[in-house]
Amino acid sequence: MTDVDVDDLADSVREGELRLHELEEHADADVATAARRLLVSEQSGADLETIGSYGFPAEAAGPNVENMLGAVQVPIGVAGPVRIRGGALDDERYLPLATTEGALVASVNRGCSVLDAAGGASARVTKSGMTRAPVFKVEDVVEAEALAEWVRDNVDELADAAESTTSHGELLDVTPYVVGDNVYLRFRYDTKDAMGMNMATIATGEACDLIESETGASLVALSGNLCTDKKPAAVNAIEGRGRTVTADAIIPRDVVESRLHTTPEAIAEINTRKNLVGSAKAGSLGFNAHVANVVASMFLATGQDEAQVVEGANAITTARTRGDPGDADLYVSVSLASLEVGTVGGGTKLPTQSEALSLLGVAGGGDPPGTNADALAEAIAVGALAGELSLLAALASRHLSSAHAELGR
Amino acid sequence: MTDVDVDDLADSVREGELRLHELEEHADADVATAARRLLVSEQSGADLETIGSYGFPAEAAGPNVENMLGAVQVPIGVAGPVRIRGGALDDERYLPLATTEGALVASVNRGCSVLDAAGGASARVTKSGMTRAPVFKVEDVVEAEALAEWVRDNVDELADAAESTTSHGELLDVTPYVVGDNVYLRFRYDTKDAMGMNMATIATGEACDLIESETGASLVALSGNLCTDKKPAAVNAIEGRGRTVTADAIIPRDVVESRLHTTPEAIAEINTRKNLVGSAKAGSLGFNAHVANVVASMFLATGQDEAQVVEGANAITTARTRGDPGDADLYVSVSLASLEVGTVGGGTKLPTQSEALSLLGVAGGGDPPGTNADALAEAIAVGALAGELSLLAALASRHLSSAHAELGR
Amino acid sequence: MTDVDVDDLADSVREGELRLHELEEHADADVATAARRLLVSEQSGADLETIGSYGFPAEAAGPNVENMLGAVQVPIGVAGPVRIRGGALDDERYLPLATTEGALVASVNRGCSVLDAAGGASARVTKSGMTRAPVFKVEDVVEAEALAEWVRDNVDELADAAESTTSHGELLDVTPYVVGDNVYLRFRYDTKDAMGMNMATIATGEACDLIESETGASLVALSGNLCTDKKPAAVNAIEGRGRTVTADAIIPRDVVESRLHTTPEAIAEINTRKNLVGSAKAGSLGFNAHVANVVASMFLATGQDEAQVVEGANAITTARTRGDPGDADLYVSVSLASLEVGTVGGGTKLPTQSEALSLLGVAGGGDPPGTNADALAEAIAVGALAGELSLLAALASRHLSSAHAELGR
Amino acid sequence: MTDVDVDDLADSVREGELRLHELEEHADADVATAARRLLVSEQSGADLETIGSYGFPAEAAGPNVENMLGAVQVPIGVAGPVRIRGGALDDERYLPLATTEGALVASVNRGCSVLDAAGGASARVTKSGMTRAPVFKVEDVVEAEALAEWVRDNVDELADAAESTTSHGELLDVTPYVVGDNVYLRFRYDTKDAMGMNMATIATGEACDLIESETGASLVALSGNLCTDKKPAAVNAIEGRGRTVTADAIIPRDVVESRLHTTPEAIAEINTRKNLVGSAKAGSLGFNAHVANVVASMFLATGQDEAQVVEGANAITTARTRGDPGDADLYVSVSLASLEVGTVGGGTKLPTQSEALSLLGVAGGGDPPGTNADALAEAIAVGALAGELSLLAALASRHLSSAHAELGR
Repeated sequence: MTDVDVDDLADSVREGELRLHELEEHADADVATAARRLLVSEQSGADLETIGSYGFPAEAAGPNVENMLGAVQVPIGVAGPVRIRGGALDDERYLPLATTEGALVASVNRGCSVLDAAGGASARVTKSGMTRAPVFKVEDVVEAEALAEWVRDNVDELADAAESTTSHGELLDVTPYVVGDNVYLRFRYDTKDAMGMNMATIATGEACDLIESETGASLVALSGNLCTDKKPAAVNAIEGRGRTVTADAIIPRDVVESRLHTTPEAIAEINTRKNLVGSAKAGSLGFNAHVANVVASMFLATGQDEAQVVEGANAITTARTRGDPGDADLYVSVSLASLEVGTVGGGTKLPTQSEALSLLGVAGGGDPPGTNADALAEAIAVGALAGELSLLAALASRHLSSAHAELGR
Repeated sequence: MTDVDVDDLADSVREGELRLHELEEHADADVATAARRLLVSEQSGADLETIGSYGFPAEAAGPNVENMLGAVQVPIGVAGPVRIRGGALDDERYLPLATTEGALVASVNRGCSVLDAAGGASARVTKSGMTRAPVFKVEDVVEAEALAEWVRDNVDELADAAESTTSHGELLDVTPYVVGDNVYLRFRYDTKDAMGMNMATIATGEACDLIESETGASLVALSGNLCTDKKPAAVNAIEGRGRTVTADAIIPRDVVESRLHTTPEAIAEINTRKNLVGSAKAGSLGFNAHVANVVASMFLATGQDEAQVVEGANAITTARTRGDPGDADLYVSVSLASLEVGTVGGGTKLPTQSEALSLLGVAGGGDPPGTNADALAEAIAVGALAGELSLLAALASRHLSSAHAELGR
Repeated sequence: MTDVDVDDLADSVREGELRLHELEEHADADVATAARRLLVSEQSGADLETIGSYGFPAEAAGPNVENMLGAVQVPIGVAGPVRIRGGALDDERYLPLATTEGALVASVNRGCSVLDAAGGASARVTKSGMTRAPVFKVEDVVEAEALAEWVRDNVDELADAAESTTSHGELLDVTPYVVGDNVYLRFRYDTKDAMGMNMATIATGEACDLIESETGASLVALSGNLCTDKKPAAVNAIEGRGRTVTADAIIPRDVVESRLHTTPEAIAEINTRKNLVGSAKAGSLGFNAHVANVVASMFLATGQDEAQVVEGANAITTARTRGDPGDADLYVSVSLASLEVGTVGGGTKLPTQSEALSLLGVAGGGDPPGTNADALAEAIAVGALAGELSLLAALASRHLSSAHAELGR
Repeated sequence: MTDVDVDDLADSVREGELRLHELEEHADADVATAARRLLVSEQSGADLETIGSYGFPAEAAGPNVENMLGAVQVPIGVAGPVRIRGGALDDERYLPLATTEGALVASVNRGCSVLDAAGGASARVTKSGMTRAPVFKVEDVVEAEALAEWVRDNVDELADAAESTTSHGELLDVTPYVVGDNVYLRFRYDTKDAMGMNMATIATGEACDLIESETGASLVALSGNLCTDKKPAAVNAIEGRGRTVTADAIIPRDVVESRLHTTPEAIAEINTRKNLVGSAKAGSLGFNAHVANVVASMFLATGQDEAQVVEGANAITTARTRGDPGDADLYVSVSLASLEVGTVGGGTKLPTQSEALSLLGVAGGGDPPGTNADALAEAIAVGALAGELSLLAALASRHLSSAHAELGR
């Protein structure tokens, strides 16, 4: 296989002997990737040289991509260090952010610096669980009621079936929802340090087999969209998915004034008018300023699933004055309802992503299991808090557009 | 400046003479980045070698990131080619997807192949406009009504002010929303080939100056969250933001049966039970299977803003049988309400991202302006359609979990 | 016809000569109603005497009900008087509330009294328009785009068609929304003093005929649910339906303290924690305490459509301190996005309902047309404000459950 | 007290000796009501004669209203009879609807007749529970997590406290939600035949006392809006409140064709395009045609809380063909997520309302407790199903606007 060179391989495709996705079966992954780049480049006329300049063996990306061409490179900046007082992560950390949006790292960095001046930020995972909700078809509501009842009566059997497919996962609960002749069963799992979507899918598949064999219900789809994965859904904003995590801090008045050039009152007022009332009027599930920026950039840096930024945006930011009127400090918090993170599996083993996890001190499985993913969730929450604080303060100083202009976008 | 080496620079920070974000002022960007890596590595104990192996001059990322450490590398796979019959893009294309989720590219690729067998997919941008919605504070509802009235009466003056800041952008309209003593003004712009968030922010800033000088209203924040940027909000799902784009296709019955091993009826039924009814029950703004996967991976490959995947998920998938009962074909569509894309600005100039845009044939400004961004939107919509079709068919064949297992995640 | 008596009529039904809904064709309306009561009573065993004790000729309810049995009687209480400083209604008024919920009238009455002590409440209708959104089926997105374009180019023709069916209504605008092969057209009308649902439906029907004859589109349903009538939908909460109306007031600190036994700070804090943050977490379109109570009871008293209480609940309450920290007053507002009211048509002519409208001074058509419905909207908004203020204050004093207990429910 | 006449009493108010809400303390309720009517009539110039013609002793409305003026009279029509095959109600029933909307009763009546021709409709309550969610203030997320933990560990103690206040109610569960320094606890109760809002409030108040005494948390409001009462909130649409109830039926093809003059295919298509896709695009929590009409009119007739029509509209209607393509029957269902009903308490004892409950055979407490309220929920669900079926069929025949015109509105 190693004797095949790029041109030979490309020829085989040109001559119709091979299809583009079959190259890895006939050559080393890097050679296959190069041949594919050559062919696609010919067809499109595009130069793909830098896409081909990736810094790891193509084989390493085998579990992550098919029809590989190369890699995209996104700059990583660093914010911090910031003191995180979490339940799983209690230390000072730099936060890695991969982004193409100028001013973002600078903004989060400023927020980190202010949090640090205030003694750091607290963080806690207050709920945890990865969900998968298959949809079953039944005859009518009479059967639907019977199925819901059966499920409530057989949770232990369902857990046995589900957990037979996984060494780590635990079924936490199953909630039935009836709509006409559809029954949705929302399975919720503790998936430890894995984000857990795949684990939950496989385990639920096994439980579905049991349901089909024991009841008259017929499985329509392993995901019935009540999970809800990668769609902006209230069920996640309310009940959570992955980690439900809050970060908060009290910023002394003098720090707000000297570092952010504004007041606790001004920040609280902007938060209410923009993040609460403005979001309310927009029919939003996200009551924050730009939490998705931090979630997206830390997800990208650490090998998380970028499409799950959708759920990561289900966050509420609060800001209140604390203490005597006129001399109050600022309490600020951000609560992310559905932050789906893992430190094992998915993109976490890719070389640059693995380094970014190490930078946070959360690479691989935690001890006890689950604590590394908790720690990652706490770090992202604190990053989000830093970003919210910084942007709210910038708005308070009316510098948003000029800051952007200066930073050259 | 070029004489300073990495160790000297790092020493200056260790000795407190320089701060971490000031390194670029004292050395070449690559040297500064290396020094920062050294320091962060020391503090965290993490090896950052592959993060440092980026394939472009650090200076090129200057407008995109601060406190640069290096770059994250995410594998790109390719799906297609697929025939796109769009309003701006009418040709055969490979679709670049940057992802860490195994099976995704394979799934989209299968969808592309089926679409191609059906003669390709249609696509149209049916609405377009980037929004920014500042919030103003007024005395009471009497003043709020007066401000809304003033805005309606002075749209031309607002357009003049806003457009004075941009050579390309055009103000399309301004819509006022009153909530107590808050007035939100949703400005909507044609920003041509730019995603336009920054252009819209600067232009709106100028319009806000006019409003403050001509009325008693006081600007609270340039973004009042009715824009809505990077939050899952109904206002975008309903009224659109960026490009509102639909892709659709009719898949002949025999293609569904031979290629997807299922029937039009089965796909239509699953779409209703999962994407429509399931999403309805979830309180969702996204009535689709996994549109966000395609949006996220094509956004990442082409230098779009990853946090705007949030709005990209506001999509509705429909699937219906067409024709005689028992012998019907399949009509399938996906409508993305708020796809925020650009082919100039942001991350589009970064080397790998620029190559991916070239692969699609949409790099840089279009002729006429706006057509390249329209074309990119159409390509993403067709990719999303391919992904929906493929996943719905896979569910119809109940292979979701086994497919994942096989592909080794 | 007047010779037929109740027993004869009932016999005809018993013998299968007549069906229950045909009685009015063979007898005076009151006789028909009595016969129906007799028959239904026999079948169910229920005594229907008080339902039969209605205080108006049954014939008067002809346009409002079919298969009439009698009437339900709901107690009306009165709150106020309260000074309303509205755009259409600038005077002191008693507010009639028909309710079965003990403590509600007392609560609104307390709020009115506090508003009065503060000089009354301001109110303004900031947007107005009744909507109807038919859904059309087209071939594909290419045709969908063409239809949207045709509509934008032919607004005047659509207005001519629509307005040909009505002497009062005016078409304000038409907004197209494309989802796959569905095109929704949201028609918005000025319907003056009528709530306007029926007027809008008939006018839109005529416009749809034009669309079908001029384009290839096929009407699926005159209401495609983007109207949105009698469902809790974000489109109404954002864009409005019927009247968009705000009421607000500044309550001096001493009034808050002496009358409500709490402080502006406490009310503002509760409003944020409950109405803003709590509603945000609930995935709500209503950010208020109990606006629906006032809407429902004033709708019922004045002959509005009770099912439209649904949209009436799309309201945001804000409460802020104003002035020096520690000595601030209270600013409180309620903004109802979609209050669908009329003073002509529907149930407004029924005797008790007509009296309640007279009590507010808004019975029948206004001069100029539309001002009576505006005035009714303002009165309801002020009632809602009174209710919000009173309940927030009660919560501030932690008396909710004890107040309920005392008032005997 | 009986010696005081109307004029004397009115004089006392005119002379400032009494306030309008104090009249019942000095005279018989009917006299007080008459005096109040006299005074309000003088102030407003409105004739209030028919409002004064109520058919029950004013004293009977004492628990339901304050400052009583009289009563509003709303016509009641009857639909049916219809065969209900429910879990609690398995019989033939007439449905009483109080409405001012012409054509509504006729429409529901037609639906009932079609359901009957199909052998009736099934109905089941699939979940049940009344909720109240107080909001507590804590120091920070560390305390928030501790409170959530404490609640999970002390459910039995909370149940003891809550249930000490009620002879019927049972605490089912308590779910904590953390947002910054706010903790919302959603208490859910089985309230048997009572709608239960008041019972739940009082019981929760007692539980809150325990929480405050045992933890550092401070109660902000007994309702933190996550309940959610009388606001359109996703938490209710997803998790339910009051009764979660579904009604469904299979309508044979020939019945659809002969009675409804359309086909199962046409009804299914309209339901998808309007109720599912149209509602999706509207950002709705209600995926139905006009369920609120039936909920509102049956609520009004039977003494339910009219403001809770808001939650009653959280309903999903489905329609599918069943059987061989081309010869299929119609399956149609409506699932109401949050129908808050009771047959004891509230307005159920008022004379006309009590008669309407008797007409349904569900007046007073059920045996076993809770079954009467379940039966009422099932009856309303079947009424809603009849209304949906009838309207969908009417749309299928494109007769909506002409039907309205004919029926004279």
